[in-house]
Amino acid sequence: MSSPDANLEIASFTPYPITHHPVRLELNDESLTVIWDHQHTSEFHYLWLRDNCHCPKCISTATREQTFEICDVPFTIKASNAYITDDHRIVIEWDHEGHVSKYHPGWLLSHCYSKEVQQSHQWKPTIWDEERITNELPRTHHDAIVESDAELLIWLRALRNYGIALVTDVDTTLGSLTKVTDRISFMRESNYGTLFDVKTTAKANTSANTNLRLPLHTDLSARELQPGLQFLHCLVNDASGGESIFVDGFKIAEYMREHHPEEFRDLSTIPMSFYNKDPYCDYRYRGTVIATDSNDEVIEVRHANFIRGPIDVPPHQTMALYKAYQLFILLTREPKFQLFFRLTAGEMVVFDNRRVLHARNAFDLKSGMRQLQGCYIDRDELLSRIRILERNTELN
Amino acid sequence: MSSPDANLEIASFTPYPITHHPVRLELNDESLTVIWDHQHTSEFHYLWLRDNCHCPKCISTATREQTFEICDVPFTIKASNAYITDDHRIVIEWDHEGHVSKYHPGWLLSHCYSKEVQQSHQWKPTIWDEERITNELPRTHHDAIVESDAELLIWLRALRNYGIALVTDVDTTLGSLTKVTDRISFMRESNYGTLFDVKTTAKANTSANTNLRLPLHTDLSARELQPGLQFLHCLVNDASGGESIFVDGFKIAEYMREHHPEEFRDLSTIPMSFYNKDPYCDYRYRGTVIATDSNDEVIEVRHANFIRGPIDVPPHQTMALYKAYQLFILLTREPKFQLFFRLTAGEMVVFDNRRVLHARNAFDLKSGMRQLQGCYIDRDELLSRIRILERNTELN
Repeated sequence: MSSPDANLEIASFTPYPITHHPVRLELNDESLTVIWDHQHTSEFHYLWLRDNCHCPKCISTATREQTFEICDVPFTIKASNAYITDDHRIVIEWDHEGHVSKYHPGWLLSHCYSKEVQQSHQWKPTIWDEERITNELPRTHHDAIVESDAELLIWLRALRNYGIALVTDVDTTLGSLTKVTDRISFMRESNYGTLFDVKTTAKANTSANTNLRLPLHTDLSARELQPGLQFLHCLVNDASGGESIFVDGFKIAEYMREHHPEEFRDLSTIPMSFYNKDPYCDYRYRGTVIATDSNDEVIEVRHANFIRGPIDVPPHQTMALYKAYQLFILLTREPKFQLFFRLTAGEMVVFDNRRVLHARNAFDLKSGMRQLQGCYIDRDELLSRIRILERNTELN
Repeated sequence: MSSPDANLEIASFTPYPITHHPVRLELNDESLTVIWDHQHTSEFHYLWLRDNCHCPKCISTATREQTFEICDVPFTIKASNAYITDDHRIVIEWDHEGHVSKYHPGWLLSHCYSKEVQQSHQWKPTIWDEERITNELPRTHHDAIVESDAELLIWLRALRNYGIALVTDVDTTLGSLTKVTDRISFMRESNYGTLFDVKTTAKANTSANTNLRLPLHTDLSARELQPGLQFLHCLVNDASGGESIFVDGFKIAEYMREHHPEEFRDLSTIPMSFYNKDPYCDYRYRGTVIATDSNDEVIEVRHANFIRGPIDVPPHQTMALYKAYQLFILLTREPKFQLFFRLTAGEMVVFDNRRVLHARNAFDLKSGMRQLQGCYIDRDELLSRIRILERNTELN
């Protein structure tokens, strides 16, 4: 399946191993039914099949991008004939322009849009509380990530699933976190730069660069797309205090959904405003604290009380939003949800900033130095990197 | 209002001129009613007012970020007393911990969350078709943007409102577009780099770098956040063909909403999948072609047929989605919606990539060179820059 010829059969760079064969076809009014040798039945609409023709007239062989556009065939296009070849491909002869399409069984079965197949592709996060993460926190040696694709894939999957993972034994020099980030992708820039320092400065434009307690929050909540992964590399931590706290925002959301369904609904439907302002910038975004997708799965948490703007929803929603929001903050403060630890020099914590809230206790400037270096990489880059590594089937 | 002392009265760097005075207060069960000298009435919930206390105990005077958290007062907090001072501030004495808050009338009126005041803040795009944009396309000289904040603000507002604007007389050297982008903010990086070249290459991993016709599309539709502004700076255009086409995606969406409400609904609620893949990356995103906000306003269009993935919605939605999608593409092809022109060397077109679809006709490689340089800057940066310029009230 990984030979170049086989791959050109499909408009993808991902291999689709043939695990099952089609055994029977039924031509319906607007769809083709495919019965597979493992008793699964797929229904593919003719328009979908025509849309997914992988022949060189429909797909650029150089870029594997589609050159055909679906609005150039009739909405009522039908198969005039369909059959299974000896090598288990499905061939369709169309009733429009004499076009013929051929489908690879591995690709086709993987793209079946029945509920059963779609659910089998569905990724689910591993949701945690204090007890679970204390036992299971993923922790990998720097050199393993840098030197081995297999170790990298294991670590990236753990990071995706838990939303948090540690790297140990990182050089404690400025910039050395890039040896890890270079294994994933480019960094996401912000008005704080690409690589940023977390240390106390005389003229701080953000609470991060003071020695004050930082309550649980996500970074850059006033940007439309909050940064995905956040990297915090500990260079020095000699000061007393300054412990790190992490909370799985998905856990808080699911806890609210179960025990406080009204507050969950309000916090996931009534928007808050977030303002991030200093003398040189003025970012504003309006979004919900909890975001869900079209399947009602929680996909994001957005929370930073210190850069929240005034609530600006219609008056009849104001008190409901406050009620839900007060509950949310109080839940994040509960120790049973909190991972509490002290970063030591050479450790780097990486977490999904759109899921895992982070906080820092105040620290005593007189007792010693505390310095971290950080950066962001978006979720898109993490997921693309995992897919690229997974194309190499030996790593799976 | 722009003196430092006055600004410290509010947790903002934006000036809020006092245009009206409060004349009467009414203390209700869970809110305060403020009657202003222009007959407007505001209702502020006590919880909202307590949340927006700007005193130095509640706000960091260094960062102007809130240190107080609303969950630390009772949900039922009330004013025990409230009055208007001689200098038109509102003072509230709270029934909790003896706290006292003072409100600046300019800030308070601007943040009134009545429908009337909220609607007065609402920005509306200037939606265009071929006829309108041909007459009104914003066009500004490079030096005016680089040298004058007033001209820059006019140009940025036009760019925001129309979603497209031209810059003329830009140096035709590689990298000179940064003189304009530096006036806004940093660029958004992607797997194609930060600055990218649009020219024909032998081993193209994207149709952009061929001489082929590129149908109307938004860039990077397979990323969760499509890039906001796209800059295309024309360095050479001697080849025949290669004309640029732009379509206001908001116009297409609004046309569908008016004339084809079912297709509008389907295209704004049933998600498509977008796949952007080459040997080194594999980006995927699932989202609607038309995105609307909580007020049902169109805020984004996502469309690139050549990197669309197989449709993967439940079977009962498949045909409805195809029907709406076929219509959408056919509408984008109608000349009455298209701005059609030929970029000449030294021109730079800038457009909101999440709104304005762009296309390029095929060009003849033998007839001459065609080379553009491009980059992206996100919407967040554009809007922040406009707000910063607007803080300087002399520019308004």
